[in-house]
Amino acid sequence: MNANWLNQVKWDEQGLAPVITQDALSGEVLMFAWMNREALERTAESGEAVYWSRSRRKLWHKGEESGHTQLVREMRIDCDNDVILLKVEQIGGIACHTGRRSCFYRTFDGTRWQTSEPVLKDPKTIYKYK
Amino acid sequence: MNANWLNQVKWDEQGLAPVITQDALSGEVLMFAWMNREALERTAESGEAVYWSRSRRKLWHKGEESGHTQLVREMRIDCDNDVILLKVEQIGGIACHTGRRSCFYRTFDGTRWQTSEPVLKDPKTIYKYK
Repeated sequence: MNANWLNQVKWDEQGLAPVITQDALSGEVLMFAWMNREALERTAESGEAVYWSRSRRKLWHKGEESGHTQLVREMRIDCDNDVILLKVEQIGGIACHTGRRSCFYRTFDGTRWQTSEPVLKDPKTIYKYK
Repeated sequence: MNANWLNQVKWDEQGLAPVITQDALSGEVLMFAWMNREALERTAESGEAVYWSRSRRKLWHKGEESGHTQLVREMRIDCDNDVILLKVEQIGGIACHTGRRSCFYRTFDGTRWQTSEPVLKDPKTIYKYK
């Protein structure tokens, strides 16, 4: 694969770039994560979202344990070349490890962050074959 | 203002949190930026997006020069308490300093990042009263 497009990304001092992932149809923002160069390359090659897990310090093929993979429908970059936007089809309809559709399930009500989205599936059953 | 909700945010080692800003109606992701605690507090108090500019190292009331302010319709936080999502009404319909609606105006076509969104207004005229 020609690497010019990978070289254009301005990776930060840790070699990472922020990634926003939204549902390709509804536009709902599902999650926020990070990629390094290899993660972005694998995402493009496989058509499924691959991130860099900062806590586990390794590549993270989203859904590798839960089955909730993300099929990438579109990939964008911002004006500063340092943030990536994925539009995906979320397999299983659940992006969050809490069993909710989106990780952004709490809304500020003027006083506190109030849970506003339901758990669709018990995380215990999502990760049972871990 | 009761500060519990501000204390719940897990600010990074620089005291910042990533912020995703999307159009409240269309769901289009408009931009990505950062906030510190004061920026988030001012955003909540004023109802207009206030970010922390990492390059200028100061609070940045979005639209302060362009007039393209962002009226905050909803504010969310993610499962890890370290990423904020704003749903806004974008005044002027232009979030990007290039004069485009969104900063994510380039789409990967399999080989390169291809410009896919038009310039709505010449930046020279946006910032003329700077």
